Amino acid sequence: MSDEAVTPRSQDYSAWYLEVIKRAQLVDYGPVKGTMVIRPYGYALWEHIRDGLDRRFKETGHENAYFPMFIPYSFFQKEKDHLEGFSPELALVTHAGGKELEEPLVVRPTSETIINHMYSQWVKSYRDLPILINQWANVVRWELRTRPFLRTTEFLWQEGHTVHATAAEAEEETLRMLGVYTDFAFADAAIPVIPGRKSNIEKFAGAVHSYTIEAMMGDGKALQSGTSHNLGQNFAKMFDTQFQSEEGKLEYVWQTSWGVSTRMVGAVLMAHGDDKGLIIPPKLAPYQAVIVPIWNKDEDKPAVREKVAEVERNLKAAGIRVKADLSEQETAGWKFNEYEMRGVPLRIEIGPKDVAKDAVVFARRDRPGKEGKQFGIPTADVGTVAREWLDDIQAALLRRATEFRDANIVDVTSYDQLKEVIANAQWARVWWNGSDDQERAIKEETGATIRCFPIDQPGGSGRCFYTDTEATEVALFARAY
Amino acid sequence: MSDEAVTPRSQDYSAWYLEVIKRAQLVDYGPVKGTMVIRPYGYALWEHIRDGLDRRFKETGHENAYFPMFIPYSFFQKEKDHLEGFSPELALVTHAGGKELEEPLVVRPTSETIINHMYSQWVKSYRDLPILINQWANVVRWELRTRPFLRTTEFLWQEGHTVHATAAEAEEETLRMLGVYTDFAFADAAIPVIPGRKSNIEKFAGAVHSYTIEAMMGDGKALQSGTSHNLGQNFAKMFDTQFQSEEGKLEYVWQTSWGVSTRMVGAVLMAHGDDKGLIIPPKLAPYQAVIVPIWNKDEDKPAVREKVAEVERNLKAAGIRVKADLSEQETAGWKFNEYEMRGVPLRIEIGPKDVAKDAVVFARRDRPGKEGKQFGIPTADVGTVAREWLDDIQAALLRRATEFRDANIVDVTSYDQLKEVIANAQWARVWWNGSDDQERAIKEETGATIRCFPIDQPGGSGRCFYTDTEATEVALFARAY
Repeated sequence: MSDEAVTPRSQDYSAWYLEVIKRAQLVDYGPVKGTMVIRPYGYALWEHIRDGLDRRFKETGHENAYFPMFIPYSFFQKEKDHLEGFSPELALVTHAGGKELEEPLVVRPTSETIINHMYSQWVKSYRDLPILINQWANVVRWELRTRPFLRTTEFLWQEGHTVHATAAEAEEETLRMLGVYTDFAFADAAIPVIPGRKSNIEKFAGAVHSYTIEAMMGDGKALQSGTSHNLGQNFAKMFDTQFQSEEGKLEYVWQTSWGVSTRMVGAVLMAHGDDKGLIIPPKLAPYQAVIVPIWNKDEDKPAVREKVAEVERNLKAAGIRVKADLSEQETAGWKFNEYEMRGVPLRIEIGPKDVAKDAVVFARRDRPGKEGKQFGIPTADVGTVAREWLDDIQAALLRRATEFRDANIVDVTSYDQLKEVIANAQWARVWWNGSDDQERAIKEETGATIRCFPIDQPGGSGRCFYTDTEATEVALFARAY
Repeated sequence: MSDEAVTPRSQDYSAWYLEVIKRAQLVDYGPVKGTMVIRPYGYALWEHIRDGLDRRFKETGHENAYFPMFIPYSFFQKEKDHLEGFSPELALVTHAGGKELEEPLVVRPTSETIINHMYSQWVKSYRDLPILINQWANVVRWELRTRPFLRTTEFLWQEGHTVHATAAEAEEETLRMLGVYTDFAFADAAIPVIPGRKSNIEKFAGAVHSYTIEAMMGDGKALQSGTSHNLGQNFAKMFDTQFQSEEGKLEYVWQTSWGVSTRMVGAVLMAHGDDKGLIIPPKLAPYQAVIVPIWNKDEDKPAVREKVAEVERNLKAAGIRVKADLSEQETAGWKFNEYEMRGVPLRIEIGPKDVAKDAVVFARRDRPGKEGKQFGIPTADVGTVAREWLDDIQAALLRRATEFRDANIVDVTSYDQLKEVIANAQWARVWWNGSDDQERAIKEETGATIRCFPIDQPGGSGRCFYTDTEATEVALFARAY
């Protein structure tokens, strides 16, 4: 397969993405339209994303639980915005156990309704608060246009659902989890996301307001990579989730929900890949290093194999995820291409000359050619050196993505300039004081939406590029997946 | 809540189980009939089961993946036994995205069909084999009578699906995974399961033969706690999963599937509980130790709190999962009852006298009263001593369950004796040479089924207790959940 080069990103970004994820065996198409099979290499990447998030959730006091996937249809009718937002995407179970059901069941597109149904039974007093629960689950949204990882009929995600006694605590939690997502994105995914608030028309169906982390993909498009919602008392009122306060008053609870999905896999792939294929950040890579033996003559093989085994042991002892590819069907050159395409951060080459010197060759995925290659690394040191290289690769990927991001965000002061910037696949940073309808008009004309009002604001005020009125907030406009 | 004692097991085992899992906040009932909510305390137990199994799967060379939950209905029509076995339990999605679907979708009750659909595309040559994939997922079976953890409409599980070049390799894998399950049950769940082969009428719909681990619950009933199936070429032929052999011939693959579900949570609870509530084996316990402060006067509190924090730090440093319950709303006595009911293996008490001596009190859940209590354990040693105690509790639970199991399996040589043994809530071990119909007749009359033909056979032959013919295998008859 890898004998053929992938379509270069510059030529057709979408084709590059679809080719590379299939060839790298991250994903395949399921038999039902819009569904995907996550293959072991893709699932291992997801497992590392999951573990990185789950650890942070637990460190911030959250516990996991599991709620049923089937939600009575009537639950959706309770919250009007929520129903309107999700109604076109619902999948319904109408028959079960050989009979037609009295009421259709919704396969969860998100779990606010069923979770509130339970919370309304669990919450009695202020002593029961806060509730800090997260769930890892599959959800279903019947989408028209799908693309593996980015938008699929069924996807995997986590959804946090918390309950608080005051509005202030709920807002604090909403921002805390936005911070957790931002930290994960920078530290583990090496993606310099921009955290911010969603505009009114882009917020979650049922939220008071929504926060997001927006990531810039290799083609300049934005990808919403995680969201954190302040739900206020909207669901509490519909499900009658009330508690007795310390003062003895019956009050509605304040809630949040927040989620990251398998879409994050797509974010990682599209943020770092190059024309040769994927580049997976070491912290998330299924294999952080691959060992490729090099042999021309049969008599070299036993000694090389032995050295490969020794290096593999040393790397594992250093806690590095490593794969040794000893297969004899393929050449070393084929393997180089294959693992470059699959995005393994570090390649270790071992040939007869290396065996003689008791040393190996390191080559890093993010720097092609000689520049990224070093000879003569002593076998005994591979663990320590590999750890250093992997840390360096992780940092380099973040640095590169940050430079790319910053080079492609343009301060814009007129609508004409915005059109130009958007057409150039960049992001426009603007002062904004327009209405929902004006935002929709811009989307209609340019394809760009407000991705967020960044948390990091310049302060003060400026002229809105569109309405020429005084604005107190800066927004980012971009085309998005 | 815990002010009231739970219904004793001897009085009403079923009531004991349902009361205790609800009061311990392991589980709650979902709004749709037969569904359950797994609450944080129950989910943490499941997480430890999952981690214990997942580690073993990876050690035996398996990788995780994820396949879509929606399966075209036509896939089920391909394998006749499979369709007949699962048809009455299927849930069907008929509408999605606001439209009626052309073909209904089955919400997976198990994934052999959709996985074979993919495998038939992935497998080309003997070089692609074996495929050793596992999936962690939710599944749906529309059951009439449900009970939390034991049998629910939706449950969580893992399902392994492997592909091999030969019948021998498939059988080897089937037995390897039975061994993995057995090892997990003994080592982590402290349940002395009996591994064995299912009878023809009890095997999985679509398998050539099925293996099982059978656990004895506290009321003497059997619980099938995990299964491993040799699927032969049944699904391969229906889905045309073929490979080119080393000799260049096109051959059907040989397959296995194996699963353990949230039912294992029920097994753990019912194998070890007592009249006071749950006893959770240390390896699976959400909290392995709980620290309960004891204070009568307000002026004692600061010093006790400080000591609690120190002990908590020491335990965490020793890798022990610990909860310190510093709440002031409840008395120490209430907390003792509460954590006994919730099955926390080790209780650590700290009062002013302990602070003065720089020591604490340990009390183990599995031995009530003074016998299980030790005073004067130095604060500095709590990590080491707790580790020893937890190991000892783990071993003691397995020993007790093994003694209970062995005391309740009776060698039976006549049908009358079998009836008596079964009526006495015990298991009957018999030589068996009967037919499927004779097995059904016994079930009809006694409620007992063949749980398995144990792997561990006496050898030789004996007289079948029912047909009085020569039998070469010993079977276990019991009533089961």
